[in-house]
Amino acid sequence: MRDRRVLNAPLPDFHIRPDPDDPRLSQPVTGLDQDGKPVDLRVVSERALTLFLNAQEVVTMMTIGDRPDLLAVGYLLNQNMLRPDDVLTGIDYDEDLEVVVVRTERATDYEEKMKKKVRTSGCAQGTVFGDVMERFDEIALDPDARLHTSWLYALTKKINTQPSLYLAAGAIHGCVLCQQDRPLAYMEDVGRHNAVDKIAGWMWLNNVPAADKIFYTTGRLTSEMVIKTALMGIPVLVSRSGFTAWGVELARRVGLTLVGRARGKRFVVLSGSERIVYDMAPGEAEDESPRHRRKGARAEETDT
Amino acid sequence: MRDRRVLNAPLPDFHIRPDPDDPRLSQPVTGLDQDGKPVDLRVVSERALTLFLNAQEVVTMMTIGDRPDLLAVGYLLNQNMLRPDDVLTGIDYDEDLEVVVVRTERATDYEEKMKKKVRTSGCAQGTVFGDVMERFDEIALDPDARLHTSWLYALTKKINTQPSLYLAAGAIHGCVLCQQDRPLAYMEDVGRHNAVDKIAGWMWLNNVPAADKIFYTTGRLTSEMVIKTALMGIPVLVSRSGFTAWGVELARRVGLTLVGRARGKRFVVLSGSERIVYDMAPGEAEDESPRHRRKGARAEETDT
Repeated sequence: MRDRRVLNAPLPDFHIRPDPDDPRLSQPVTGLDQDGKPVDLRVVSERALTLFLNAQEVVTMMTIGDRPDLLAVGYLLNQNMLRPDDVLTGIDYDEDLEVVVVRTERATDYEEKMKKKVRTSGCAQGTVFGDVMERFDEIALDPDARLHTSWLYALTKKINTQPSLYLAAGAIHGCVLCQQDRPLAYMEDVGRHNAVDKIAGWMWLNNVPAADKIFYTTGRLTSEMVIKTALMGIPVLVSRSGFTAWGVELARRVGLTLVGRARGKRFVVLSGSERIVYDMAPGEAEDESPRHRRKGARAEETDT
Repeated sequence: MRDRRVLNAPLPDFHIRPDPDDPRLSQPVTGLDQDGKPVDLRVVSERALTLFLNAQEVVTMMTIGDRPDLLAVGYLLNQNMLRPDDVLTGIDYDEDLEVVVVRTERATDYEEKMKKKVRTSGCAQGTVFGDVMERFDEIALDPDARLHTSWLYALTKKINTQPSLYLAAGAIHGCVLCQQDRPLAYMEDVGRHNAVDKIAGWMWLNNVPAADKIFYTTGRLTSEMVIKTALMGIPVLVSRSGFTAWGVELARRVGLTLVGRARGKRFVVLSGSERIVYDMAPGEAEDESPRHRRKGARAEETDT
């Protein structure tokens, strides 16, 4: 059984970081390049993980499989199937069976929820249960939270230069929980929503407060990202990618600070700009080096 | 009711193309940039679309909503809920109700299927029914199909310079059905799987043969993309993005030619390289101009 430790002491940069050298997470493949010459590269591994909440089979996810316990707990929290005050009696992971079981003191029964799920499971942003939106409208995010531009520039540089599966194999999303200019927990997964859920699971299992945090994602600022960030109680969401209309609409509705296209010196704020503190001129910020340009790094610069 | 026309005559480039000027597909939003100055940009709209097959409610999708009929038919085909020999008696779309109903001569009942779906709906690549994989293993793709490198270079240039919602608003995926060096149908949507389904729906409604086609996508070459391309009977899948291990494994299993990281002069083939005809030296190909570099254009160049 995993205790819910309390992390009050300040955490170092990347207290949790990707492990691109873990042989379980990526594998070498050989192909041909544009000249017909053999080329070796690494591709990210995916494995099935079937999640049980007590006796209830909930879902089968495709994941890189690095943090099944955090993914399981975070998924249940973000789907409103685990309550903030629930007490865990165990998290059992069987790597061979590809099964993770989360056990709670409170008896749970989500038969009804499972039925509801079918109705929205084709959603481009993954699965969102009906009652999640009800909870969404009750969220109050900290109005005093701030995002200093100096933090933003420091965070994007630290994250882009941190060794990761993305830099080693590509075709993967990353999410990073940050505090001021410090990246605390950096999770990756093929599915963006899995990386978010791992962060949520880590925060909950370690009683990490949310009001003073900044959430960074490599992915697009879709409705799902906005909903999950707000449900976690994090007032600031930053991405190097772009926005969707529904994501912007929901961020404005809940008062979430939404920063997109954050690359090098540039960024755009489409919601909650009152939390931005312009304490560093963009001219003082470094631009991204090609070596560390990420997916989307050159995208959308043609937009107006 | 929509007839199943037969498209035997050669189609012009972009017979179906994005309409970035359609006001229903994107909307203007105002924010602040890195200097705190107001900035106007366009973001892609998303709307719900609930799909019925006869009397059965199947799924609610988030889509840009430009081709509800094609999305509906393609989704049902790719989920194995519509058989290739099914006869449609109607496709009714109600924009206000955000509902599309596909009617078939054959009575359908997918209650069992709907139950199965729950088990996989958390999959990072969207929803794939159990019996889809059974069908996958029976697929025989045309061994004589070819991909000339001159076609590949011509296609990527034409696609990247074609006006699109991506160039106008960003944060959207594109899929293009191609024949030799000609892009025939270019569909976009927030969810990559929706864009694929629209292509499948268009092909089926117009009896477009698959064996001589090339499928281009802006998205990652995940298992879902490989499965859907193979189910459509298309022997070649090209993307400007990267690979996942399961995508590569499935492509090799079914004999699909899988070309990734296709940008400017560069590309990598990880499966079915026997179909590649190197008829043009990369040196003769133009590189991408920054103006038309897409999402991912600079990604993964650090990979080996």
